[in-house]
Amino acid sequence: MSIRIGIFGYGNLGRGVELAVRQNADMEVVAVFTRRDPSRLKTATNLPVYAADAVADFRDKIDVMILCGGSATDLPVQTPALAAMFNVVDSFDTHAKIPEHYDAVNAAAVEGKTTALISVGWDPGMFSLNRLYAASILPSGQDYTFWGKGVSQGHSDAIRRIDGVKNAKQYTIPVPAALEAVRRGETPALTTREKHTRECFVVAEEGADTARIEREIVTMPHYFADYDTTVHFIGEEEFLRDHSGIPHGGFVVRVGKTGLDEEHTHVIEYHLELDSNPEFTASVLVAYARAAARLASEGQYGCKTVFDVPPAYLSPLSGEELRRTFL
Amino acid sequence: MSIRIGIFGYGNLGRGVELAVRQNADMEVVAVFTRRDPSRLKTATNLPVYAADAVADFRDKIDVMILCGGSATDLPVQTPALAAMFNVVDSFDTHAKIPEHYDAVNAAAVEGKTTALISVGWDPGMFSLNRLYAASILPSGQDYTFWGKGVSQGHSDAIRRIDGVKNAKQYTIPVPAALEAVRRGETPALTTREKHTRECFVVAEEGADTARIEREIVTMPHYFADYDTTVHFIGEEEFLRDHSGIPHGGFVVRVGKTGLDEEHTHVIEYHLELDSNPEFTASVLVAYARAAARLASEGQYGCKTVFDVPPAYLSPLSGEELRRTFL
Repeated sequence: MSIRIGIFGYGNLGRGVELAVRQNADMEVVAVFTRRDPSRLKTATNLPVYAADAVADFRDKIDVMILCGGSATDLPVQTPALAAMFNVVDSFDTHAKIPEHYDAVNAAAVEGKTTALISVGWDPGMFSLNRLYAASILPSGQDYTFWGKGVSQGHSDAIRRIDGVKNAKQYTIPVPAALEAVRRGETPALTTREKHTRECFVVAEEGADTARIEREIVTMPHYFADYDTTVHFIGEEEFLRDHSGIPHGGFVVRVGKTGLDEEHTHVIEYHLELDSNPEFTASVLVAYARAAARLASEGQYGCKTVFDVPPAYLSPLSGEELRRTFL
Repeated sequence: MSIRIGIFGYGNLGRGVELAVRQNADMEVVAVFTRRDPSRLKTATNLPVYAADAVADFRDKIDVMILCGGSATDLPVQTPALAAMFNVVDSFDTHAKIPEHYDAVNAAAVEGKTTALISVGWDPGMFSLNRLYAASILPSGQDYTFWGKGVSQGHSDAIRRIDGVKNAKQYTIPVPAALEAVRRGETPALTTREKHTRECFVVAEEGADTARIEREIVTMPHYFADYDTTVHFIGEEEFLRDHSGIPHGGFVVRVGKTGLDEEHTHVIEYHLELDSNPEFTASVLVAYARAAARLASEGQYGCKTVFDVPPAYLSPLSGEELRRTFL
């Protein structure tokens, strides 16, 4: 029997889930829910689309609901509401607010006897897992996370809000010297500026004052002021040709010591290089949807994270097959 | 209350466990067991040493026994025998025989109501975990494992058995071009020869025929014949100075595709660079000993592998602390 998946919200991430499920023979998407007019939404593979309001009618028709809304305003409301009715997986990524999100979702899932997996993706998600594994194995050590090269949606949006900007894309880039030092097993103390640079490609409106736009970007507090930022003004054609993708990735590195006098150094590195951030995130969500279905079938209800899920639960293979194939 | 650890077997790995436990405040080693004369074994930090035969007297004094013998002849006998009495962790690494080892250990652990974790370390172990995670997330893709640069004990031993060889060390080295191709997201079909080279440092006995030794090495079936092998004859002094360490490491890379027509490529890479293979392996064993104690306290008996253990169980931190710190 297939695991019946619902997709709640259809943007880049929802589309990614739609496509990822096709790569998993033990699953199918039975419904997409949208707050837009369902009759006007056509998905990449023509899935049935319903109004978000109708979701309660699907309680017996969906095994796991994958939430594909945003962390700022959608998920804090939607995940608890849907966890009351469905097993759910979300990609809530506001790190500082995870404890509060966890509590709200856990209360709903315990009450509803459902399994809810939150903050699934790559950061939080696979990067978090690698931080945990590495720190547990090498308790005496130092962690480093580098992001990029990749597109930061939030920073791109911040640039687009500047007067005179028609379009913009911002890439976060690890500083090569810092990354290489850590990979060599050094444990430098790195400031924000020493870890990442920011590169911006901006299409200005005709006649706009590009010097003023550049100044507003590089001095923007929180977003750019603490970084070395480069701004390139380019034409719309070049922008569409070279900057339409949503690549991302990064590095989680732990440098740890062992030995009688900590004389031995070990470097554990996890590195992602992703052509499509939303499609990869969706692929992680789908693997964890399989785990959510299994946890729920065992009566393991409540809110959980990637830390709580036995790795075997992500795979369609049996324990015996896994030991034979992957161990 | 501390987790009380026993160490069964005291070679490089046992010593590594002794040192790793010192880095974990919630654990202590209460006894080391040896088949040698216990009165003549002094451990790195002067732990109490007992005869292996006396181990049954420690049933109530040890929470988890970490087995530090070899996979060829020790563990197939010792792990089932000790799993009947203790929660155990071993590093059984004969990949082809894992299913049979699993069955033997599982029968003993189920009968003895103990928790047994087998094949813990980095390969099998952390590399296996990364193969499983990556394949579950990107089901359409290709896996690559590269080992090294590092010392292969088995290959070094094979050289030392050649007539006229006084000492030898063999390094396994990934072929840079192959590794780089995979990292770029290509999915080449690679032969054994295309993936790794072997480099040997040999101290010959005085007057030995080095041309004959070199020929015997590079043509040795299974060990060297399928590889491009380089042999260096060096003096004993240089050997002791430059080749006394036991470094190792390697790469697990998965190249996977997503999208409507699999138009997007993703590369997941896990990379270890280890100054001391036995000390790192020991550090993994110790983290999983913590998990074994917790699984046993929950009544989760029987044989398990890294695939079955929720990542959170490796850490001394609570779920709440983990979500706040690592997610």
